[in-house]
Amino acid sequence: MKAKVHITLKSGVLDPQGKAVQHALSSLGFAGVDNVRQGKFIEMTVAETDPVVAKATVEQMCKSLLANTVIENYSVELEV
Amino acid sequence: MKAKVHITLKSGVLDPQGKAVQHALSSLGFAGVDNVRQGKFIEMTVAETDPVVAKATVEQMCKSLLANTVIENYSVELEV
Repeated sequence: MKAKVHITLKSGVLDPQGKAVQHALSSLGFAGVDNVRQGKFIEMTVAETDPVVAKATVEQMCKSLLANTVIENYSVELEV
Repeated sequence: MKAKVHITLKSGVLDPQGKAVQHALSSLGFAGVDNVRQGKFIEMTVAETDPVVAKATVEQMCKSLLANTVIENYSVELEV
């Protein structure tokens, strides 16, 4: 089963990387771009076949390794 | 209009960051995890209101700045 994880900075947390991208886009002539936020996207294959168990396992991975839950949110999607 | 951009490594391109995550997950006791690939997820607000023009503009941003098209794929989703 394929799992897709999005890890994004919580709103209110400063995102200097996003600001740098926004500034670079504006220097390249792209106008009207705002609120650029950069996060991580992780894809993986899990051997578990029960979607409920698989989702719980991947959420546990987020809590223990993939995301810093003090400043980041995570969301897990499964693709059967 | 909100745009979400996924930037992923092309298949066949080595992903040492994904490998490191996979190894760390296995060290933490998560079994059966494979093919971990890490990409980028960028959210932004664009002032353009025509979805067709907005998508074309964001794809142009991907080509010129956000993605390295030699080794990375990008996909753009718009949220009206």
